[in-house]
Amino acid sequence: MRTKVAIIGAGPAGLLLGQLLHRQGIETIIVERRSREYVLGRIRAGVLEQGSVELLEKAGVGEHVHAKGLVHDGVEFCFDGDKNRFNFRELIGRTVTVYGQTEVTRDLMQARDDCGAVSIYEADKVSVHDFDTDKPKVRFVKDGVPQEIACDFIAGCDGYHGVCRASVPEGALTTFERVYPFGWLGLLVDRPPVADELIYAHHERGFALCSMRSPTRSRYYVQVPSGEKVEDWSDERFWDELRRRVDRETAERLVTGPSIEKSIAPLRSFVAEPLRFGRLFLAGDAAHIVPPTGAKGLNLAASDVGVLAEALTEYYQERSPAGIDGYSARVLARVWKAERFSWWMTSILHTFPETDAFGRRMQRTEFDYLVSSEAAAKAMAENYTGLPL
Amino acid sequence: MRTKVAIIGAGPAGLLLGQLLHRQGIETIIVERRSREYVLGRIRAGVLEQGSVELLEKAGVGEHVHAKGLVHDGVEFCFDGDKNRFNFRELIGRTVTVYGQTEVTRDLMQARDDCGAVSIYEADKVSVHDFDTDKPKVRFVKDGVPQEIACDFIAGCDGYHGVCRASVPEGALTTFERVYPFGWLGLLVDRPPVADELIYAHHERGFALCSMRSPTRSRYYVQVPSGEKVEDWSDERFWDELRRRVDRETAERLVTGPSIEKSIAPLRSFVAEPLRFGRLFLAGDAAHIVPPTGAKGLNLAASDVGVLAEALTEYYQERSPAGIDGYSARVLARVWKAERFSWWMTSILHTFPETDAFGRRMQRTEFDYLVSSEAAAKAMAENYTGLPL
Repeated sequence: MRTKVAIIGAGPAGLLLGQLLHRQGIETIIVERRSREYVLGRIRAGVLEQGSVELLEKAGVGEHVHAKGLVHDGVEFCFDGDKNRFNFRELIGRTVTVYGQTEVTRDLMQARDDCGAVSIYEADKVSVHDFDTDKPKVRFVKDGVPQEIACDFIAGCDGYHGVCRASVPEGALTTFERVYPFGWLGLLVDRPPVADELIYAHHERGFALCSMRSPTRSRYYVQVPSGEKVEDWSDERFWDELRRRVDRETAERLVTGPSIEKSIAPLRSFVAEPLRFGRLFLAGDAAHIVPPTGAKGLNLAASDVGVLAEALTEYYQERSPAGIDGYSARVLARVWKAERFSWWMTSILHTFPETDAFGRRMQRTEFDYLVSSEAAAKAMAENYTGLPL
Repeated sequence: MRTKVAIIGAGPAGLLLGQLLHRQGIETIIVERRSREYVLGRIRAGVLEQGSVELLEKAGVGEHVHAKGLVHDGVEFCFDGDKNRFNFRELIGRTVTVYGQTEVTRDLMQARDDCGAVSIYEADKVSVHDFDTDKPKVRFVKDGVPQEIACDFIAGCDGYHGVCRASVPEGALTTFERVYPFGWLGLLVDRPPVADELIYAHHERGFALCSMRSPTRSRYYVQVPSGEKVEDWSDERFWDELRRRVDRETAERLVTGPSIEKSIAPLRSFVAEPLRFGRLFLAGDAAHIVPPTGAKGLNLAASDVGVLAEALTEYYQERSPAGIDGYSARVLARVWKAERFSWWMTSILHTFPETDAFGRRMQRTEFDYLVSSEAAAKAMAENYTGLPL
């Protein structure tokens, strides 16, 4: 097989890159080690920045997100029961759209099917080769048969545990990491959300988040210590804990029901530098992880591949390497700012075992300051809705 | 002796309170355990918020600060050699004034002399009594003779190590504290400052600050580990270290000379709550300490006594206890925000032994974000020039 850009990973990053390139007439093959159903079954992020929605439009899949996505003008913070709404539209004229990652993935898979581009699911033993030359190759085994793709470029959109970052020669990569001493226990339920907008709650018992996927499907989270087991959390225990951490009005309005999914995700900050090695590019979770507090993971992946698609288009249409040469620095500048915001949101909203009384007051005062200062609220709003590239 | 308000401490907080009350016809006596010369000899802060200058005007001592103070429109941050100026006047229409604490103290002492108010210096064994009744008393020994002042109120302006906070009954006080693992080694020199405005520098070797007291007198600082001895720092070593930590242009422009003062100050965040116990009030360093990074110490003391003077005036002129009842909460709301800003400035600009590579990038990214975002720069500017009450 031969293609222009071999994309490793059929998550939203890889699929979006595929569609953005397809619209520019650049052929791709996607290689994914999991099944299509497995990829679709993953419950992940649900908040899209305006820039991400614009990229979905550019990729030709804007219809569903506009029809079914919920535009949110703001979010609420609830600190020890004191609530404050931050109105992004009023503060900075921007909004976010609630639309599940599962839906984004499904829309992009459908679009890829419609245009007849090749996706190879359940590819075993995927490996990437010769990206330090101008003839990179991707090898894998499909249904027991070894295969090879010759290509111009490889896009590593295969996530944190993927093969692409792992294939970078030793010493070429610098990594930065922060592991938080807690995780998020998430519960998905087919009940209407407790509020029209997201509620981020800080409580002495820990963080909680009231989120949603649609007007009838809600997603709730509570902070749990690292090492906690999901089996120890009955639905009832979850709802009790959630009610304790939010304000009374929210607790009383909460409509509970049987969980349709429940899982614990650890929280981590991670960045690898650089993001280009010859003809291999890293994008999305393959390159960086944010704790979910700022809702930045999917959005960063989208903006990475947006830049990468532009760079590759420039290469094929104008024969200019400027875009691909600048990819890493351009993307990382924004990545670090999103890392900063996600770390900051995580730091002020969660409880940390090592935080002393002074530190807890600093968390509270961040909230009080945000509430009292238009400049501070604007800074929060511009980060939450997505900084410019 | 008898007076309306007995003020413990003849630092800028106590002296300013005395003058603000004097202008309202409220009699005070100041009791200070040190000599006048000792108080005047302390080298401290040098940056006044606009609100502090306004309080000095209100106290009748605005003349010198306007004649000799240097109005600064902004400050520079220098991060690993990359410099950025933050123009407060352009960002938010506010400025700061460089005018040494020594000068503020001298102006206030002169004004107090001019109005004939009583100040008792070198008072030994100062103690405060019966502030849980409406007949509080201050006792001390002057020239070997025990003395007592009967008063309506006691204002504890006697600093972190003073007797007032220490006299609050056990259990009535909650304290919050953060001790930083480093101090500032400061050097005063009769040479023109290296730049027109302050330069706050972050460097992998540690923080540095280029400050000033006048057009011919400069104040420089370098971060040193806790436990460092000033004897180990020759002037030459200091200048070498300072040059390493600032950008090349600043290093080359630096005019050095023999130090006229050199000392190490530890960095600490501290807040005591509440600030009123019956008829005893705490103000300034007696109630809270900030690390000097945000230049907030003297300014907080000024705003504390500004509120206290208003409250006491309301009490005497309108027989209303509303002001004195609200003093603690009103002052603390602003104190905590200044604590937050000072802690944040300290956190991003210093090197911390425990900070990992991710944390160092967060510091750098705070700088990059501040440089790139008008909202973030405005938030910094409004804090540096002084938040409203």
